[in-house]
Amino acid sequence: MPDSFSFTLLKTDGAARRGQFVTPHGAVQTPAFMPVGTQATVKGLTPEDVRLTGAEIVLGNTYHLMLRPGAERIAALGGLHKFMNWPLPILTDSGGFQVMSLSTLRKLSEQGVTFRSHLDGALVELTPERAIEIQALLGADISMQLDECLKLPAPRDEIARAMQLSLRWAERSKRAFEKVRGGRALFGIVQGGDDLALRGESAKSLTAIGFEGYAIGGLAVGEPQEVMLKIVEETAPMLPGERPRYLMGVGTPHDLLEAVARGVDMFDCVLPTRNGRHGMAFTRYGAINLSNARHADDARPLDAQSAHPAAPTYSRAYLHHLTKANEILGQVLLSTVNLAYYQELMAGMRAAIAGGRFGDFRAATMALWQQGDLPPL
Amino acid sequence: MPDSFSFTLLKTDGAARRGQFVTPHGAVQTPAFMPVGTQATVKGLTPEDVRLTGAEIVLGNTYHLMLRPGAERIAALGGLHKFMNWPLPILTDSGGFQVMSLSTLRKLSEQGVTFRSHLDGALVELTPERAIEIQALLGADISMQLDECLKLPAPRDEIARAMQLSLRWAERSKRAFEKVRGGRALFGIVQGGDDLALRGESAKSLTAIGFEGYAIGGLAVGEPQEVMLKIVEETAPMLPGERPRYLMGVGTPHDLLEAVARGVDMFDCVLPTRNGRHGMAFTRYGAINLSNARHADDARPLDAQSAHPAAPTYSRAYLHHLTKANEILGQVLLSTVNLAYYQELMAGMRAAIAGGRFGDFRAATMALWQQGDLPPL
Repeated sequence: MPDSFSFTLLKTDGAARRGQFVTPHGAVQTPAFMPVGTQATVKGLTPEDVRLTGAEIVLGNTYHLMLRPGAERIAALGGLHKFMNWPLPILTDSGGFQVMSLSTLRKLSEQGVTFRSHLDGALVELTPERAIEIQALLGADISMQLDECLKLPAPRDEIARAMQLSLRWAERSKRAFEKVRGGRALFGIVQGGDDLALRGESAKSLTAIGFEGYAIGGLAVGEPQEVMLKIVEETAPMLPGERPRYLMGVGTPHDLLEAVARGVDMFDCVLPTRNGRHGMAFTRYGAINLSNARHADDARPLDAQSAHPAAPTYSRAYLHHLTKANEILGQVLLSTVNLAYYQELMAGMRAAIAGGRFGDFRAATMALWQQGDLPPL
Repeated sequence: MPDSFSFTLLKTDGAARRGQFVTPHGAVQTPAFMPVGTQATVKGLTPEDVRLTGAEIVLGNTYHLMLRPGAERIAALGGLHKFMNWPLPILTDSGGFQVMSLSTLRKLSEQGVTFRSHLDGALVELTPERAIEIQALLGADISMQLDECLKLPAPRDEIARAMQLSLRWAERSKRAFEKVRGGRALFGIVQGGDDLALRGESAKSLTAIGFEGYAIGGLAVGEPQEVMLKIVEETAPMLPGERPRYLMGVGTPHDLLEAVARGVDMFDCVLPTRNGRHGMAFTRYGAINLSNARHADDARPLDAQSAHPAAPTYSRAYLHHLTKANEILGQVLLSTVNLAYYQELMAGMRAAIAGGRFGDFRAATMALWQQGDLPPL
């Protein structure tokens, strides 16, 4: 394996991009979906299960791992890859988003953010430099700069202030990262809320600093889908074409399809696992609620065409039963089925872009979703 | 596969027995441990996971399945094997034990028992005939008679009354079973509490009725281990040697070792999965509480010698982390490790009996448990 990060753009089809990046833990085909392994586990699945869904990279959360079990502890145990038995690439976020959403008594300053742990109330400081240090201790293949992420809607001057602070933190992150690089990549994060001028300023300044990749942050935080897609559509072309583009925390299968159409290469989202734990399946027929009584006597599989064994093996009646009975296996199977569908969707998009038929794939995929689930028996 | 049940006693070593029974869904080596699949799932594990632990048969609970999703529904969906994707043998209990422990407003009569479902309060009647009918609908390879199971201690006349009622229900179960047999086996259940004379009367009367196998019921319900083992020791020889003997709802690894030493062939218990969900591992070093802080920095595996991949793969530090973080994967991995250890223990006992060295195996196993877990790092 190489000891540095590289990205190759293999093919474009309209704004959609087919590429590959290489890390010290292996290559990842893009567009790529990264399952979220918040607490050093993709909830409910073994690492082998995650690989069998087709995932080539997972995301780890700095905020959760720094609080429990602790970054220094994971480093002493050989790093996050070894700790969670995941031998393929790992991207870690910077912790900024969860500090805003999970912790209490936050105090934001130029220096960083101090907060109380949601676990034990301990006072913790997170600075751009500490976020880089933690991600190096974890051994992330891709680290993210610390940024300030607002909920939308927000006043323009507040969005501008947060974007400017995030830029200064990007500079400090880059300087800190130079000391711990060791084959890893650092991504900058474009902020600017729903203001295209601010997004443009952020993208331009980040590009001047120079990163191995660029994320579009601060979206999927309350705004309508069309606003999100508009920002993505305008922001993606402002970023260097020879670097990967990562839309953070997004999204539904439809979000992924539309964002790839606008030039995004990477995604992460808890939806496939979180919704799977609550009885919802994502399939080629759209979203299916397994707790609905219509499935109680339905011997058909959720998706007979899926390449993953879990989707064709178990009957809807059985998945309905497990969901109603709140059995762990129901949560595990639906999380697995959902992650497998997300990966199948990404693989379909990659093949379509490579073949210059992304438009057809997008239309056919949407048509099947709109047609909806199989009619009841 | 044969369309009838048979048991072959292959070897004895003292009172310990090495045997095999054959069902329409395959053969089972005894002494055997049956993981409990209460609600048509061994909690947290896929059927494939269960097989990989070495299990050759699982138990299903009539009480739970009759209430949800319903026996008629499972039959319409092709039976329990197909419903839960478990192609190997299944033993179902009669529902009697759970009626006593889970339902409310029970009313016991000569005819049977009526109760309110713990799920929705619906009034349900369970008779010996209905218990047989349900188990036939589920498609169980081995069915159990309906019996009345008391908690111990209990007054002798109450134990005698319940034992006599269970005998009359055994007769009715046998008559009902003759109509639905279809290759299946029916086991009678010895009752009589901690009274050896009553146990003897029950065993003798059941043998006169004639069953494919005999269970020792009404134990592990509050009495000390030495009382349970005494009853087992005295009751087992009262049962026909050419039929399998099943000690219901037992137990810890030590219970299993001691009961095999006294002539028991089959066991079921929720301990390996229930305790696994609560952070406890059963290993060759005894029970280990993974939530204990001593494991937080321990990179060693739980059991480097286990033949099952889960036990040597994950560090104690990781299992501790998953347990503290209440992650599903921790519950899944510890349940898996525990079931694998139970099966390894059973395989060890089978090999030892076959080799005429059960006494040595028992002493060596106990010595390792008593030596306890590895010393801290």
